[in-house]
Order: sequence, then C-alpha cells, then structure tokens
Amino acid sequence: MPPDSGPPRPRRARELGIAPGELAPGRGNAITDVPGVRVGHATVVEGDDIRTGVTAIVPTALGADRRTLPAAISVGNGYGKLVGATQVAELGVIETPVALTATLSAHRVADALLGWMLERPGYEETTSINVVVGETNDGFLSDIRRRPITDDHVREALRTASADRPDEGCVGAGTGTVALGYKAGIGTASRHVEVAGSPCTLGVLVQSNFAGRLTVLGVDASPDVLVGPDAGSPTPPGNSCMLVVATDAAVDARQLGRLAKRAGFGLARVGSHFTHGSGDYAIAFSTASPTGAPVPDASLNGLFLAALESVEEAVLNSLLTATTTSGYRSRRAIAVPREALLDRLADAGALGPG
Amino acid sequence: MPPDSGPPRPRRARELGIAPGELAPGRGNAITDVPGVRVGHATVVEGDDIRTGVTAIVPTALGADRRTLPAAISVGNGYGKLVGATQVAELGVIETPVALTATLSAHRVADALLGWMLERPGYEETTSINVVVGETNDGFLSDIRRRPITDDHVREALRTASADRPDEGCVGAGTGTVALGYKAGIGTASRHVEVAGSPCTLGVLVQSNFAGRLTVLGVDASPDVLVGPDAGSPTPPGNSCMLVVATDAAVDARQLGRLAKRAGFGLARVGSHFTHGSGDYAIAFSTASPTGAPVPDASLNGLFLAALESVEEAVLNSLLTATTTSGYRSRRAIAVPREALLDRLADAGALGPG
Amino acid sequence: MPPDSGPPRPRRARELGIAPGELAPGRGNAITDVPGVRVGHATVVEGDDIRTGVTAIVPTALGADRRTLPAAISVGNGYGKLVGATQVAELGVIETPVALTATLSAHRVADALLGWMLERPGYEETTSINVVVGETNDGFLSDIRRRPITDDHVREALRTASADRPDEGCVGAGTGTVALGYKAGIGTASRHVEVAGSPCTLGVLVQSNFAGRLTVLGVDASPDVLVGPDAGSPTPPGNSCMLVVATDAAVDARQLGRLAKRAGFGLARVGSHFTHGSGDYAIAFSTASPTGAPVPDASLNGLFLAALESVEEAVLNSLLTATTTSGYRSRRAIAVPREALLDRLADAGALGPG
Amino acid sequence: MPPDSGPPRPRRARELGIAPGELAPGRGNAITDVPGVRVGHATVVEGDDIRTGVTAIVPTALGADRRTLPAAISVGNGYGKLVGATQVAELGVIETPVALTATLSAHRVADALLGWMLERPGYEETTSINVVVGETNDGFLSDIRRRPITDDHVREALRTASADRPDEGCVGAGTGTVALGYKAGIGTASRHVEVAGSPCTLGVLVQSNFAGRLTVLGVDASPDVLVGPDAGSPTPPGNSCMLVVATDAAVDARQLGRLAKRAGFGLARVGSHFTHGSGDYAIAFSTASPTGAPVPDASLNGLFLAALESVEEAVLNSLLTATTTSGYRSRRAIAVPREALLDRLADAGALGPG
Repeated sequence: MPPDSGPPRPRRARELGIAPGELAPGRGNAITDVPGVRVGHATVVEGDDIRTGVTAIVPTALGADRRTLPAAISVGNGYGKLVGATQVAELGVIETPVALTATLSAHRVADALLGWMLERPGYEETTSINVVVGETNDGFLSDIRRRPITDDHVREALRTASADRPDEGCVGAGTGTVALGYKAGIGTASRHVEVAGSPCTLGVLVQSNFAGRLTVLGVDASPDVLVGPDAGSPTPPGNSCMLVVATDAAVDARQLGRLAKRAGFGLARVGSHFTHGSGDYAIAFSTASPTGAPVPDASLNGLFLAALESVEEAVLNSLLTATTTSGYRSRRAIAVPREALLDRLADAGALGPG
Repeated sequence: MPPDSGPPRPRRARELGIAPGELAPGRGNAITDVPGVRVGHATVVEGDDIRTGVTAIVPTALGADRRTLPAAISVGNGYGKLVGATQVAELGVIETPVALTATLSAHRVADALLGWMLERPGYEETTSINVVVGETNDGFLSDIRRRPITDDHVREALRTASADRPDEGCVGAGTGTVALGYKAGIGTASRHVEVAGSPCTLGVLVQSNFAGRLTVLGVDASPDVLVGPDAGSPTPPGNSCMLVVATDAAVDARQLGRLAKRAGFGLARVGSHFTHGSGDYAIAFSTASPTGAPVPDASLNGLFLAALESVEEAVLNSLLTATTTSGYRSRRAIAVPREALLDRLADAGALGPG
Repeated sequence: MPPDSGPPRPRRARELGIAPGELAPGRGNAITDVPGVRVGHATVVEGDDIRTGVTAIVPTALGADRRTLPAAISVGNGYGKLVGATQVAELGVIETPVALTATLSAHRVADALLGWMLERPGYEETTSINVVVGETNDGFLSDIRRRPITDDHVREALRTASADRPDEGCVGAGTGTVALGYKAGIGTASRHVEVAGSPCTLGVLVQSNFAGRLTVLGVDASPDVLVGPDAGSPTPPGNSCMLVVATDAAVDARQLGRLAKRAGFGLARVGSHFTHGSGDYAIAFSTASPTGAPVPDASLNGLFLAALESVEEAVLNSLLTATTTSGYRSRRAIAVPREALLDRLADAGALGPG
Repeated sequence: MPPDSGPPRPRRARELGIAPGELAPGRGNAITDVPGVRVGHATVVEGDDIRTGVTAIVPTALGADRRTLPAAISVGNGYGKLVGATQVAELGVIETPVALTATLSAHRVADALLGWMLERPGYEETTSINVVVGETNDGFLSDIRRRPITDDHVREALRTASADRPDEGCVGAGTGTVALGYKAGIGTASRHVEVAGSPCTLGVLVQSNFAGRLTVLGVDASPDVLVGPDAGSPTPPGNSCMLVVATDAAVDARQLGRLAKRAGFGLARVGSHFTHGSGDYAIAFSTASPTGAPVPDASLNGLFLAALESVEEAVLNSLLTATTTSGYRSRRAIAVPREALLDRLADAGALGPG
C-alpha cells in the first residue's frame, strides 16, 4: 500500500520505542525485505458477523522456471489444520505460495490456491501440486461456520501481493484474530544477519491468535495489568499462531527445519502459554539460488537469533497495529492500550530511544 | 451393495485360491468386519475423460456422543496431499470419517466432508474440526485437472456407507487408479486375531495406485511375465497407495502408529517399489471403547501380522476385482489376466485349495 | 542432604524474591516434590582439571513390580548424545532411572547404569534394558577428554538418591557446567496444578549449560549488563541443556511428549539463544498408577504452564546456587553477581515480596 | 580375508543360484564395493557360553580432513538401543565409523569407539563426538549379561577393517544372532545403479536377528517347511535387524533418510514379521564428495530399488553363510538346510541359472 493511499498506518513497535533484540532490522522491517518475497491480503468484512480474510506470502521465484524452493515446517503444537505438511517434510520444498486464512476455510483456500497454480503458464500439464495453507481460528469475532472465503478472495490476495511492506493488524487472515487478551492480526519484522560471511536477510510474518500473558520487552503487559481485572478479550478455543519465515540465506531443508523450530520458540518471548488448543506452526523457506555453496550448520546461530527476534517483533507489530474490533455475537476484542503500555515500559526502564 | 442388485461381483483373491498369510480372515474378509465400520463409494464416470470418485470409511461411533477415536497416521512416503496429518499426530485421534479421492480433488473433498460434519446433530457450535482425506493420483485414466468431485459426491459416499462388504475394484476412489502395471482400485480384507487374550478383528481398505512388480504369493506376476514385454499399463506420475486400517482392539494412538507402520510394510509383499513419487500413507484407528484395559505392547504381534496380511490381500483384491478400463486421452489399463495368473501360480505350487 | 550436614545452602531464586510465574510451587519447590522421585549426585572434582559428575533421577516405582513408567523425550535441538531416545519414542516408557553427566562420559554412565539395573532383584533374567542418559558438555571447566566418570560414581549417585530437595548448583552433573555467561549447574523447581479436577505436582530438574543472554523476570541480566563488557564466561562449544520433568498426573506417553516440548520452550524465558551446538532435550515421565483414568488433552494447560514456569525457575536456581569456579586450563566461570542482579530487578520493578 | 587364509568360504546366495531382484550387483556384491568403505570384525567366542562380537563399518574418508559424512537413520521399529540417533537426525551426518554389537554391550562399544576417535590425528582438541552403534540381541546363543566385549575387541574390528569383501555368517556382531528360525549373522550385498546419469554403487551390510517366516525368492522356506514342525530355532526376545547402507551417490541427509526407509521395507521380502520386540534400524551414509551437484529426488528410484534388493540379498547371505551353532544353556540354532532349500526353489521354478 503506497503511503498516500489511505489513512496513516498505525505506529509499529519500533516506532513506539519498542525494539526487541540486538540485531538490526531490514529496510522495511518486514518479510518483504527478503528479495523476491511478496505479500498480499484479502480482507473480508461483512455486516456484524464476518471478520476474516486471506493473506498470501508469494515467493516470486516459484513459477515456470523454478518449481520448488527449499522449505520446512516445524510443528510447535499440531492442533491445527495446516495443509501440505507431509509432502514438505518428505521432499523439503514448497511448490506454491503460502496462504493463511481461518480454520474452517482452510480447505477452500487450498482448493482455490491449487486452481490458481494450475492456470499458471508452465503448469498446463501439471497433475500433482502440494499447496501450503495455514490457518488460525477467528471464530470469536467472525461467524467462522459460514466459511465465507471464496476463490475470488484467494485470487485477490495473490494478485495484490506486493514487495512493499505489508499492511499489518486487522487485515487479511488477521482480520478477526485475537492474541494474548487483545485484538491481534498480521505482523511482520525482519533482521539483517551475516551467515558464513555473507549478508543475509530473514523475515517473518505472523498470524497471531494465541493465548498467554502479553510480555513486551520482558514486562508483563497483560490486560490484567494494563486495563484491569478480567478486562482482556476471552481466549477463543482453537487459538493458534502461524509463522512464516523467509530468508535469502542458502540453507537447505534440514537447516530450514532447525530455523523454523526457533521461530516457534520465539513465541515464548511475548508470553505464549503454548496451550493445548493452539496450532503453532512455522513454515520456513529459502529464496536462495540452489547453486550457492552449502552453509555450515555452525554458521546458523545468527539466523537462529534473527528468527527469535523477528517473531517477537512481528507478534508485537500484529498487536500494536490492530484496532479494537467488534464482531460476531457482539463480541469485542480490545486493542492494546498504547499509553498504558508505554507508561509501564518506561517505568520498567525497558524502552529504547524510540 | 446387496447381492441381487446387479451383476455378480468379480471373484476375489481367496475365491480364486489365492490365500496369503496364515491368519483367518473375518466373516466378510473386509474392513467392515470390524464392528461399527461402514464404507460408501461415489463412483464418478463422465464420458471418456473422467474416471474418479470418493470412498468414505465411516466409523459409526463418531458423532454427538463420542467425538474422537484413537488414531495414527504412518507416512511411508510423504509424496502426497493427505489432509489432516499434523493434528492426528498431535492429539492421536480422528474426529471424522476418512475420505479417499483423487489428488487434485482432495481439498474439495475435505471441504465437503467438513460441511457434512458441521451439519450433524451435536456439532451446532463446533468451530474446529480436523477432517482426514487421503488421495492418490488417477490422472492416467481421468482428466484430473478438471477436479470433477462435488459436494454431492462426498455426501453420496457418506450417505451410502454400509456395514456390508464394500464393492471393490473400479469403484469410488479406485475408479481410475492403476497399480503394478494393471488396472487397480479399491480392495479390502480382514483378519481375526487374539490380542491379550481377547478376540479382535483388524480390517484394511486400500486405494491402490503404485508402482512395482506385481507379486502374488511370492510369484512374479508382472505384465512382463503374464502378458508380454511392455504390455503393462505405464506408471503414472504421482502413483501412491492409501491404506486405512480399522480394529476393535483397545490399542492407543501410539500403538496404532506402530500398527499403521506395519500396514505400509505390507506393500512390499505385493511387489511395491516404494518409488519417489508414491504417496504411501496408512491411517489406523480403533473403535474400541475407551474404558477397555490397555493392551501391552508385547501383545501386538498378532495385530502386526494381521496388518501385513490384510494389506497384502486387500491389494490383491483391488487388482483382481478391477476390470480393464479406458479413459482420458484414450489411455487404457488392463486387468490382471486371471487365467495366466492362476496358471503361473499353479506351476509354482503356490495355490491353496481354493 | 539434611540441613545440619554442612554449610548453609545458597539462597535460591524464590528466597531472593525472584518468583517467576503465577502457579504455586510444591513444598520443596523441587522435582522431589513429585511423590516417588528421588535425586542423587556424585560430584567429581580432581585437582585443577576435573569438574564433573553424575546426577541420577530415580523413580522409586521402577523395579521388580513395575518395569516401566510412561515417558517421552522431546528433542529441542538434537546436538547431543542422549542415550536411549529411540526406544522411548517407540514404546513410550522409561525402564530405568535417568542419569545426567558429561558428554564424553555418557556411554560409560550408560554402561554403569545398565550394570546396576541387571543386578537388581527381579532382573536376573533380563537381557534387554533401555537406559536413559543425558549429557551436556562441561569441557570448558573440566578435562572432559579424560572421561573420569567410573562405575562407582554412577552407583554413588543412584545409592544416595533421596526424596529430600536435591542440592543445586555445582554438584553432580552440574559441577562443571556454564550457562548464559555464568557458572551454572543443577537446578530444580516444581508447581502444584490441578489436572482434570485432581491436584497434581510437576517437578523439573535441569542441567544448565547453554548460551544466550540471561533474562530474569524479563530483565536482561547478562554479564554485559551486570558485570561489564566481555565479562561473562565464554560459551563453550557443545553447550546444552538437559531437562527432566516428572509428574504424578496420569498422563500417557503422547501427552508427556507434549509436556516435554513445553519444558523446552521454557528455556526461552531465561534467554536461551537455542544455538546450533546446544543439545536441548527434555525427558518427561509420569509416576501415576497405570490404572488411573485417562486425562483429556483439554485438561493439560495447567501442566503445560507448570512446565514452562518450573523450567524457568529451575534454570534460575541452577545459576543462583552456583559459585564461581576455576578449572581446566585455568579457565574460570563467574557466579551471577547477586547484588547487582537484585538491584537491577528492583529498578525494573520486577521483584516480588521475596 | 584373503582367499588363501583359511577354509573355503560358504557359498553365498547368488553362488547357489538365488539371485533376487533385477539390478546388477557390484563387483564383490558387498558393501565394500562402495569406494572408501571398509569392514572389520572381531569375533568373540568363549567356551560354551559366549557367541558375540563387533562389526565395524569404516568410511575411510572420515578423519582429519573430512569430519562428517551425510547420513540418516530410519527407525523401522525402535525397540533397540541404537546409540547416536538424535544427533544424526539433527545434523544429518555421521562423525565416526558405525559399529554393531550385542544389545547389552552397545554402550561399552560406544565408549570404546569414542576413545579410538579421540586418539586419531586431528582430534586432539575434540571434546564432542557422536558415535553410532547399533545392536541386536544375541542372548539366545550367548550369555549376553556377561557383557564380554572389551575395548580391544572394538579396536580389533576397526584395525582389521578392509576394503575386501567382508566375511559373512557367524562372524563379528553376527556370531550369535538368529533370524527367521535359523542361525543368522552378518550378510552383505550391493547393486550398481545409475543416478541422474552417473553410475553409482549402493551396498548394504546386515546384522540379522529377527522373527518371521524365511521367504526366498517368494517361496516359503521356514523351518516348518524345510525341516519339519517345530524344527526351527526359537525366536529370542529382543530380536532385531540392523541395516547399514552405503552409497557413493551424492545424496543429502534427507534423501538418505528416504533411502534408509526403503532398506527397512526390504525386510518384508525375506519374510520379516516386524514384531514388537525387533529393533529394526537402517543407517545410510554417502561417501560422495560434498561438492557434487545435488541429485534430484525424481532420480532416486534406482537407489531405492537397489536398497530393497540389496537388503533382501544381504539377509539371505547372512543366513546361507551361517553354520549351525550351539551356545549358552546348550541352545542350538540350525543353519538353513541348503539342499532342502534348493530343492524347494527348483520345484517352484524360482531358481536362476546359478
């Protein structure tokens, strides 16, 4: 979204002085900092009942010339309907963009993404393709049983995918999600890191929808503390977190699996309770040319830290850019109260120069 | 299908004197011998191009009273689009019937099965459900890219599910499949076995669509041998085998995982080459009451052998009951030539009393 | 160690006012709060070069009457020589106490533990037993290549195992370990929690030896901050963390696997960087009678939180009870400076009533 | 063993006309056909009670220059004490030769192998190394509880490792093993295969010790059939099969995992019942230079078939070269009766030109 196309964007964590970690973010502090990664959203809001959507993470290299990218999926907690996991595990690649949506629409989105792939040039004879779709349950704010996502929504997310920093908060697959007691949504962040002597970028996009106590820079920022007892949004069942990790480091599928695992660990930094009903998955892929020299595992620590930090900041961005939202059955999820948060962080001496 | 509703069924392996293994089959020698397991098919044949369908394995216990059954999935080779795997792994249960279909229709079938579940009594407030759908690629005989499976087909397979011995061969999800150089399809078999002192039944249903050299009772029965050089059906890409295992033994999810693995091993007995492109998955579930005493692992050998033998016989049934079929792009898959096979088995002294 | 047998023990985290989490600790705030769990140490210090040992976690139920306990191992990062993992995964049980030691002594300890088991009453005819031994690399402070652990050390740890709160810090398998820039060692903690309506206890014992930035109650307490630039102990290669989780909740092996995973996630709370070279494993077992009713997965959230919190506090205990130690090649690992830490926590408003 | 150093070797399967599969064997039809792979044995026979030993598979490339080889372990059935599995899974490499021995000696062998590695040139500062040791239970013929394997035996197997075709049958780790009702032991076989246009070799070495009905070229050759009712050797508890697969194809760890899985599937071809108590593991490694171009997965079918066939033939070799053996507690395991077997195979028309 170009800056002149709408209202000013909500300020992100780092703009508020909340700068987790020690590594430097990429230019846009977004997954789109990884060259060749685009993101698009379809936001679906209808009346009082529907608050949902689709977010597509599109590696532009995938297409007629290059049919696969090295990839891995780490299952932090498998309570979720992730589409495509077993083939990614077997072959160590993704063959399509990654789409995110609502739980009960996951299979519709998978079918639509499949249709879109089959129509692409170079895929005229393709009879087998493994689509990857993640989901979280937005049924607290949205009438999820209506399954409102259509083929057109999926195509919209794919068609509008852009290399610009993606919108965050209540957009796309994050339109109706709730995390850590607050309205949540889509968030993104990135880090620059040197891997085996080469500068690389790692970016993360999250669809946040999970339970726990919001922790910002180590400080308890749960609704109990910032708002008052029982003030937070109730935790919906089936709460979850989808993490998408992209990098241009020339890591292989096994190494991406190690990286994806660290992305999941990063959820602890913002206070996830890793509950039974949370489908916590991380999908990591590399856009690097397959001809690059292999990266020794001993060089991965920078990437690992980048994943931890990017997940932390992306979740904070998903919360801080979201706005208080009402929806299905008149339920309401409140935005993180920024002033109260910043006051509390200041008291704890946790704020950076901002 | 009641016996009077159509032409006589093709003779199954055992009726031809081909009786693999040492354990006794169940009454119908079918997965439906396991009490509470029903099977339904929707066979989809349109003009010259469409040879596909849906097969549903329906545990009747699943419903308003009992929301889950212990289950496990074993991935023999993960080149496949199996829907629902990660949640089965995490929670050790299935929540829905298991549906089988064609690769590119898997997500449509998943969405239709989901819709059917949401409409069931007792599921009015359900906002999360993990459907399980397996697939193999019938694109050799069917125009798989058209994705002809509809909601109605899935509902037909579910609605017609019956406790009778299911039809085999070119029906349901086996309408267009090809295995070991011959026309294949759906097959089933079962075994009686004692587990920790209690009589139990184990049944298997296969959707056979994989590469290798057909081996019957240890005898090479590949097209090279039975028909002539280069006589067999070409192996389509994405060939695979789905195995569904049901038992009334009171085994838990971990034990079902061990059982599912053995089901996969059973494919070696009929000559599978376990090729790169074969999505070989086994889904095992138990219908036993959850209050039963746990079964010691040391008592599982009977069930393990039952799985090996039932898979062997079910694959043979899928081939022997299938008929020569023409389809998409005028391709043709020939049925196993029975006379030639029986002659060869007789020569090798491999036939039982028949 | 009875309270009158030596110098006063170092104060633990909670005694200093550092009380992470929201759940109530068990009576001793130790893994030995779980009924039937004993812990013993053999501390091996020789001259300037050897700083190592063995710690044994002994479930008293294991023996002639009960040959196994439900158990699971979660591999956070598999850079480590954990002994016994594959059989625990297959059968979902442990058959022996769990022993912890130094990397290059793991196999000696495994063999000694095996010998001890074979001598126990009721094991006279046993010809197969799966010992479980974890390790971390104490080669920074100890001449690990000398492999000084003997059969006698293992027997000492087993023989002295007691239901009292175990010693922490520089004892047993923690004698030579270093974590987060400070001298570390053995730590323990526990939580009371209700599971499906029944009061249960979960206890954790850690052998801490991993890299990252020490984070206490969310506050950065790394050597950079508390001591000064480059003040911390260098991170040894092969740094790792072993986590042992015990509970009397009647959870099965699959559920213990879920629990063990959360234990690993808990390392993020104290600042682990989950580096490449860190062997991070969690072993969880249940002492519950096998006749107990199964626990629904939806009741596990309390246990999951207990695991997260107990790991956090156990690691803090391992650091706060450790003392500055010199060793091999005149290397030195400093203890966490308590005054500086407490000052910093007070400044951040993070200290409890203590 | 040079041909003139002792009695004539027993004839192997292929020398008897038993030639399973369709691919051409390597020059020696042995794992040592893979360039850079050596095998050594230490056979330990003492009085009437000890029938055991050590077999070492030594990749000569491992040493000061090259510290790791790509590798993977597939767990067919995890009832076994395999040493080193989790690190191989995490890092995708082996760092040492692979040693095979008896169950209760596995940790002693691991410790001895570790000591040998630490003494090698270039390992003077090594403080972490992941040894890989497999085992099966030879307790039927050997007093396994005595744990007679010493450091010297391990060094003998390593020192005598040779690029010649290894001895088979009752040698090394196969001295006391029993499989499929007969005396078994060590066996080996190999295949030539083209992978992505390049000629490659795949070799297998087995330590066979598992239950089932011996099946030779598809023909039932169990003791019931060849000898008479109840004639076979009783199946010892803890029976198992270790499979080691070496190739010079430039496959990576993920691909080696796929290959190792197929090796396990190959056990079905000789009649394995994949029983509960059988520790069935396959370890696959590649000796290819790391600079080779990656092999597409679609090119792996030849290697997969080579693994299936080599395992089948290696197990047959392990049985056919073994001799009737008496041991502990006057137990006796009979060799496969060759004449009866060959007669039966001839009757079934299964013999090749021989």
